[in-house]
Amino acid sequence: MVAMGGGEEFPQRGKSDRELLLFTAPHKEGDVDQIVAEIQKEFTNLDVEFVQPGSDGKTQVPKELYQRANYLTTFTWLPPNASEVPDLKFIQFLSAGVNHIANHPIYTDSKIPLLSANGVHGPQIAEWVVMMYLVHNHKYVALYEQQKQKLWKPETGKDVTDSPGKTVGILGYGSIGRQVARVAKAMGMNVLAYTASPRPTPESRRDDGFIVPGTGDPDGSFPSAWYSGLDKESLHEFLKQKIDLLVLAVPLTKTTTHFLSAAEFEVLNQSNPAGTYVVNISRGPVIDQPQLVKALNEKLIGGAALDVTDPEPLPKDDPLWDTPNVLITPHISGSTSAYSTRATQVLQENLRRLRDGKKLINEVDRDKGY
Amino acid sequence: MVAMGGGEEFPQRGKSDRELLLFTAPHKEGDVDQIVAEIQKEFTNLDVEFVQPGSDGKTQVPKELYQRANYLTTFTWLPPNASEVPDLKFIQFLSAGVNHIANHPIYTDSKIPLLSANGVHGPQIAEWVVMMYLVHNHKYVALYEQQKQKLWKPETGKDVTDSPGKTVGILGYGSIGRQVARVAKAMGMNVLAYTASPRPTPESRRDDGFIVPGTGDPDGSFPSAWYSGLDKESLHEFLKQKIDLLVLAVPLTKTTTHFLSAAEFEVLNQSNPAGTYVVNISRGPVIDQPQLVKALNEKLIGGAALDVTDPEPLPKDDPLWDTPNVLITPHISGSTSAYSTRATQVLQENLRRLRDGKKLINEVDRDKGY
Repeated sequence: MVAMGGGEEFPQRGKSDRELLLFTAPHKEGDVDQIVAEIQKEFTNLDVEFVQPGSDGKTQVPKELYQRANYLTTFTWLPPNASEVPDLKFIQFLSAGVNHIANHPIYTDSKIPLLSANGVHGPQIAEWVVMMYLVHNHKYVALYEQQKQKLWKPETGKDVTDSPGKTVGILGYGSIGRQVARVAKAMGMNVLAYTASPRPTPESRRDDGFIVPGTGDPDGSFPSAWYSGLDKESLHEFLKQKIDLLVLAVPLTKTTTHFLSAAEFEVLNQSNPAGTYVVNISRGPVIDQPQLVKALNEKLIGGAALDVTDPEPLPKDDPLWDTPNVLITPHISGSTSAYSTRATQVLQENLRRLRDGKKLINEVDRDKGY
Repeated sequence: MVAMGGGEEFPQRGKSDRELLLFTAPHKEGDVDQIVAEIQKEFTNLDVEFVQPGSDGKTQVPKELYQRANYLTTFTWLPPNASEVPDLKFIQFLSAGVNHIANHPIYTDSKIPLLSANGVHGPQIAEWVVMMYLVHNHKYVALYEQQKQKLWKPETGKDVTDSPGKTVGILGYGSIGRQVARVAKAMGMNVLAYTASPRPTPESRRDDGFIVPGTGDPDGSFPSAWYSGLDKESLHEFLKQKIDLLVLAVPLTKTTTHFLSAAEFEVLNQSNPAGTYVVNISRGPVIDQPQLVKALNEKLIGGAALDVTDPEPLPKDDPLWDTPNVLITPHISGSTSAYSTRATQVLQENLRRLRDGKKLINEVDRDKGY
């Protein structure tokens, strides 16, 4: 480049000034263009290379591409190992968990920050929870069957139970539980939170992960009381609080397997003989399913809404299908048309934080596994 | 009474110190006892006489009873005229409106304050609105039909639309609309309010009527924008705001009859081609029903949930039953098992206000009729 006489030399923007974001995802073409435009609007020195899976469903990324990547966004595809990606500053996963790559060398043998998309599921799953509670309380299924018959019989919808003054107990106060709390509180309900470890201070009650704007409980301000513990005695103390709606939103671990079984349904019944409504959006095995069937048949609880079962798919001959007061959906509560937009928001937030020298959000603790 | 030597004379509490509340309602025996106990706990100098309808459904109140009543609480029964109730300080109705007694001499020829139970319907009707919006967006009816067949097909629930960032337009920002706003806001939605007359000041945006504790929008703080007017031009300006959920909660008047007709469905479609979801919980004739059927068939709007129709009951051969994307319930959204408790709360609030010399709430303007 030739310096122009008199004026200050305008610095050349060399190749080295620009960074590369490698994005692998099975998004639709239109969505890809929109996502790239959205990212480049804020991060103008970022080149974005999008790689879609081939017709065989497999993602093939050219070596020369991933070797010079500074950021990687992905559902499952990973480079072979850390030494092949010397400039990689973080990997932003588009899934809420990263269990599926826990045996990969990048996970086991590197320190590249792994960032999850935890938090993007709050709104739609919370809506599923609220919908099911209302469908049960407002007798919607009976009203719908009546509509199909073109019958106008108001008796069918009389004396429904509504929510003001009722109590929701949220077992697992993460991003989903917090959004359930926000909506339940707006419906006039009293919120009780349950966490694995105690949350005695304002700081410990905060949600430091990604939060969809305008949702959730960032400061942990909605619960009127907090309970905690991984032992059954602590759990029973919580279940004794006359809970009307019990939401299961805990991760599945050895401790939480069959966390709700015969003894717990008894405790619920003694505390609230009118019948707790139990909603499970975590994993099927958190509930001892044969005992749930028994509790429903004996009317120890008011009903159950299950988006997860044990096993999945639920076999046609499983007695759960024929149990009264149970609503079952096939593990779909987390699906939303806004998913890719929200997952991209997590990526953008982390690019922003890295640029501004702040702590990244949603970084996976490799020891804990989440 | 004999004064005891030395001590201060204890004033005798004569019959005249006590007041009489006459309560006529078809409540269950257990509820009556609970209501009377609840009232007398706070108002210890109040005698409560409860009169139930006879087996013929008619309420007969002895003349000597109503003639000495200081307060009357009722759904429909009224004394013959004002001169028969010289000590009556107010009549607390248990219904949200008083149109049903608008030709009675007490209404036309007296100034006895008439107090409605307006506000008690907010929570349960708002829950019905939210439930129907979610049932539509989360494809619940298809999921339910699948459960009946014991099918596990996740495709049925894929890519649902959830609420963050969506807009709810509330046509009629009264007690019901305000509670819809509270829940919608908690779900991450943007709230737009529409009222008959402009609400330019904070004072004008307040809800001065009865509010179920923990619900509603007492200060009018949820809407991001306020629209108003009784003319179609003003209405269209509102409908042009790309509304995702339109809630009809206006009273039925000459002006609001067929407030939504062909032109309005066109405006909605142009503003939001993805399809506004229309919910009616006011009165059937607010919508021009044949035009609604047309708009649904032509997919000008995304769907409709109707708790009210024109006429009611909806005849078996009405084309509305067979229209796609419509959910119909038989005018039941206001029913709740908490009704008598909440209506009694309005009475208690007014007894309290009269005792404390404050302005009564929910007083009917005899000229306006509400």
